[in-house]
Amino acid sequence: MTRDDCLARDVADLLASLRDQFVLPAGTVYLDGNSLGALPKSAAARVAQVLNQEWGEQLIQSWNSAGWIDLPQRIGDKIGRLVGARPGELVVADSTSVNLFKVLSAALNIAAAGVPAAPQRGVIVSERGNFPTDLYIAESLARERGFELRLVDAPEAIEPALASGPVAVLMLTQVDYRSGRLHDMAAMTQLAHAHGALVVWDLAHSAGALPVDLQGADADFAVGCGYKYLNGGPGAPAFVWVHPRHAERFVQPLAGWMGHAAPFEFTPAYRPAPGIARYLCGTPALLSMAALECGVDTVLAAEAFGGLAALRAKSLALTDLFIERVEQRCTDCGLSVVTPRAHALRGSQVSLSRVEGAYAIVQALIARGVVGDFRAPDVLRFGFTPLYLRFVDVWDAVEHLHAVLTGNEWRDARFQRKAAVT
Amino acid sequence: MTRDDCLARDVADLLASLRDQFVLPAGTVYLDGNSLGALPKSAAARVAQVLNQEWGEQLIQSWNSAGWIDLPQRIGDKIGRLVGARPGELVVADSTSVNLFKVLSAALNIAAAGVPAAPQRGVIVSERGNFPTDLYIAESLARERGFELRLVDAPEAIEPALASGPVAVLMLTQVDYRSGRLHDMAAMTQLAHAHGALVVWDLAHSAGALPVDLQGADADFAVGCGYKYLNGGPGAPAFVWVHPRHAERFVQPLAGWMGHAAPFEFTPAYRPAPGIARYLCGTPALLSMAALECGVDTVLAAEAFGGLAALRAKSLALTDLFIERVEQRCTDCGLSVVTPRAHALRGSQVSLSRVEGAYAIVQALIARGVVGDFRAPDVLRFGFTPLYLRFVDVWDAVEHLHAVLTGNEWRDARFQRKAAVT
Repeated sequence: MTRDDCLARDVADLLASLRDQFVLPAGTVYLDGNSLGALPKSAAARVAQVLNQEWGEQLIQSWNSAGWIDLPQRIGDKIGRLVGARPGELVVADSTSVNLFKVLSAALNIAAAGVPAAPQRGVIVSERGNFPTDLYIAESLARERGFELRLVDAPEAIEPALASGPVAVLMLTQVDYRSGRLHDMAAMTQLAHAHGALVVWDLAHSAGALPVDLQGADADFAVGCGYKYLNGGPGAPAFVWVHPRHAERFVQPLAGWMGHAAPFEFTPAYRPAPGIARYLCGTPALLSMAALECGVDTVLAAEAFGGLAALRAKSLALTDLFIERVEQRCTDCGLSVVTPRAHALRGSQVSLSRVEGAYAIVQALIARGVVGDFRAPDVLRFGFTPLYLRFVDVWDAVEHLHAVLTGNEWRDARFQRKAAVT
Repeated sequence: MTRDDCLARDVADLLASLRDQFVLPAGTVYLDGNSLGALPKSAAARVAQVLNQEWGEQLIQSWNSAGWIDLPQRIGDKIGRLVGARPGELVVADSTSVNLFKVLSAALNIAAAGVPAAPQRGVIVSERGNFPTDLYIAESLARERGFELRLVDAPEAIEPALASGPVAVLMLTQVDYRSGRLHDMAAMTQLAHAHGALVVWDLAHSAGALPVDLQGADADFAVGCGYKYLNGGPGAPAFVWVHPRHAERFVQPLAGWMGHAAPFEFTPAYRPAPGIARYLCGTPALLSMAALECGVDTVLAAEAFGGLAALRAKSLALTDLFIERVEQRCTDCGLSVVTPRAHALRGSQVSLSRVEGAYAIVQALIARGVVGDFRAPDVLRFGFTPLYLRFVDVWDAVEHLHAVLTGNEWRDARFQRKAAVT
């Protein structure tokens, strides 16, 4: 295996042209698309159009003339194609945290309604390693509604937790943000249902990165992020999906006017819109919505080349190569691979751990143009977006990692962690 | 009074140059800045910078290098200068509806904690004419928390409602979106406090339009909108203020990671940030935030010319002129002035009503380039943004209104209301 072999693989890569959709800074190997996806080339013109023509020239009339009012559904349907939702089942709105509050409220309410003695179903199960904002929202709702939030320390502990008592809701993130471990959505959903629990899925690190099939898995609720693998831009609006069997069973508490059946009738009493539209709340941030649509379109462009199945195959090839190269090149460097080797258990990232210097190593790599990120306490995290990464990027990244470690470059004072890190 | 008199007033207007900050389509008299403020000229370049340089080139590093992480506070402090909040008391986040959910939750919780027998304080008072999304959020929270939402039909009925029983929270919008009636914030707050109630103010139609002094009025909570008189762009993020005496008394339920004391420590348990920062939730929509800052800056630019007091004086002169001209020019046209004549009771808009054809008249005016809006059932609403409106615009608008009415232009089929209006 040589660098030329990687270049040859890039030449043979049927997805290679998808990279041309993005602005990528010269000299950078960007392995942080799982934190903030790269900029689609189409976004600048589209955002400028919304700003200059739709806002500047057409002003308030753009709600109708430019179709602003339909954007949550229009972009929602596009995302739906990437996560196994049918048209009309998914909308773009708010942030992942806010959407999680909505669906978790719904799930708890539906679970409580299903069993007259509500305390009998008073447990939310999740993983201690779940993304913190998910846990914070669940903690908040559990406290308010008198539920218990029960956290398990490993995926293997989920089934015993479901079996140990009456569980209302299982709340999982499909791909662990720190380890990159992937859940089997269909199997886990089936397991939860077998124990009488509803399932809420957070697709933050899976939507746009790998095939997701919410309908096929018979999931109950899902939320996800617009600015990671969907390339929607910093703080892009998030999305929310509710299975149609639940969508109209509950009025979610953030009952804002955009979720009203007739928002422009301005009636004093709330009447929820049919279906998923009731999960809208306030007025959407239009400039950010416009960029999000460009990002989603970059993923949909892969449909001409085999879609998410092809992206997934390339993603696994990239992460396989990265793991292989790290193990060949960085032996005796004190690195261990945190992310599972089994394809069925791996998302689109590889996390390494190192007892000493993980933070500084990441900084030294960034100084060399290899952008990953650090996750406390000791994780070096590298995301692989198959839309724009090349095999040669993987090769080069590992060469840089090797240089940083063997040259002790990371010990340089400028790479050390400050006392207060944000 | 002639059109030339209006032109002379524009020449003499010390605020006239502030209009140069905006892109305004030729031939348009824009009287809908209370629904969507006009585009600041600075926004295109600033948004392009965030998109191309900060997102495209710097990517994830912009959270620190471009100060993205500080934007909610930085823009919040700027808005604070416009509404009488001190630095560090106000943040930009989410939508008005979502922020209202946060502060109303806090207000209800604090009210309930103040009185051991919570049902004794179980009433939220508001106006039936309040903006619907405010009522929907209050209705939702009242249902969930077991409070009663009591709506009054006129401002005069607020005091009796406060006196009639133990009220937890008085929730008011300072300027009525439909009638343009203005509340006396200090007096109403004092009244509520005298009856043991907390006050939540929605500043949607007042922030940036007239002097607001939350601290001076001793208010408890406030939310407001970024896309009306703050000119922040379609769906711009909203803001939230909590008096420091309340800010740390409660963990608001939308306890997302951006409101955590140390979001990047990724701890599984929620620890609220000190002060107003705990009212943040998820990741902010950065492109829309960038445009919002440009909009807020257009209002702050008035500080060199007397600030909001000067803007208020011009706003009242504009609305006085509009009312006067309507009454002179459109006698016997079936129009009546809904907005109060008294300056102390008037926001920055004038609403007219007409039994027949209100919707069609608004459409006919828009076709002539005079952009106001219709509010059911019979209101023609005209907003006056003193930053960019001229006295001659007022004159011309009324001439167009006269022409539409006397020529029966509004009866044209293309201006009639469709069955389903959005």
